[in-house]
Amino acid sequence: MKAIVVDVDGTITFIDRSLDCRAVRALRSLSVPVVIATGNVLCSARAISKLVGTSGIVIAENGGVVECNKVEYNTAYMKECEEAFNFLNEHFNFNLEKLDPENRRTEIGLRRNFDVERANLLLQEYPGVEIVDTGFAVHIKSKMINKGTGLKRIAELMGLDAQDFVAIGDSPNDAEMLELSGFGVAVGNAHPELKGIADMVTKGEHGAGVAEAVQYLKEKGEIR
Amino acid sequence: MKAIVVDVDGTITFIDRSLDCRAVRALRSLSVPVVIATGNVLCSARAISKLVGTSGIVIAENGGVVECNKVEYNTAYMKECEEAFNFLNEHFNFNLEKLDPENRRTEIGLRRNFDVERANLLLQEYPGVEIVDTGFAVHIKSKMINKGTGLKRIAELMGLDAQDFVAIGDSPNDAEMLELSGFGVAVGNAHPELKGIADMVTKGEHGAGVAEAVQYLKEKGEIR
Repeated sequence: MKAIVVDVDGTITFIDRSLDCRAVRALRSLSVPVVIATGNVLCSARAISKLVGTSGIVIAENGGVVECNKVEYNTAYMKECEEAFNFLNEHFNFNLEKLDPENRRTEIGLRRNFDVERANLLLQEYPGVEIVDTGFAVHIKSKMINKGTGLKRIAELMGLDAQDFVAIGDSPNDAEMLELSGFGVAVGNAHPELKGIADMVTKGEHGAGVAEAVQYLKEKGEIR
Repeated sequence: MKAIVVDVDGTITFIDRSLDCRAVRALRSLSVPVVIATGNVLCSARAISKLVGTSGIVIAENGGVVECNKVEYNTAYMKECEEAFNFLNEHFNFNLEKLDPENRRTEIGLRRNFDVERANLLLQEYPGVEIVDTGFAVHIKSKMINKGTGLKRIAELMGLDAQDFVAIGDSPNDAEMLELSGFGVAVGNAHPELKGIADMVTKGEHGAGVAEAVQYLKEKGEIR
């Protein structure tokens, strides 16, 4: 394997979103590039990458934004997301509260204070859009964009294939990324759905799971 | 002491801006609020506060932005900074490169690729403006704003006095913050100028220095 792509919230952080230093130690021990993949906006993803001490190559907004030297925004579906957002607010009084609206350019991030399942059912008029709850935030996003499409694009920009990556995550929104990668890891605290499609499920949770996977792959000679 | 305010780059991070987990451990062990004070933009400051696991109360843009539940931007001097920036670019071909221009609202951040001393000399026509090199970025900023003014304001918002804070930093742009605080700490790698005005200079560098100061103040019963 030639690189690692790793989710942030819940995977290299604890539930309260504070960094798990066991993950930091494991990721810094690698000589292959480590790509951060998050639902956060680019500005946060960059800060995270700096603090973790990784390459500065990032996937942000759940795949809508990638940065490898230069930044690419996939804004093609933002209008559709805005329409779905307005539909829910205007017709059903959802009173949705946007997160980082001034920085989020390819999807809509929302505070987790409403009935996501009901909202998804109501969105049948917008078949291209889905609402995803990562456990940390809710996203109104295009079905055409996910961390898997982000991984494909960042791999291209790095001169690699998605199959060259180890992918590590905890949430259903990491599924496409794990499936496209060469080796998918679900940390011990991951959603059952993600565990079901992973090549490896770690015993350890959060950063301990990341460290466990890195250790395993190093011992197998799969990564360095 | 009732709270701590701590610089980021060079203080809780290493030279490469990656987080020093020794600082993280020490800061998380405190029950008083920990305020992050940085030259970074608000979006980065928030991400840093989350990852460090602190209160979410932040001072950003070297004091120009403070957040404690709500955000305050001191944009009063931005025009002056822009004028100084244009003056250097137009008259002296400095070719200055802005950092995070879309998110920086109260001062100008610049890549460290020009002669800061010469630029400062040329700016005599703009007596309200100064150019500060933190070792990580260069800032064109108003002399009316610094981390000390930021600390005063955040203390007010928290119902405290600046004197209630322990302040920890490494760079001359932390000086006003240390001076206004009740107890100023310079980490071992700090600039001599900052060490000169600090109440305590730690032996340890970066996160080890932060941990040393926290340990010392706990043992003295000054903080918990």
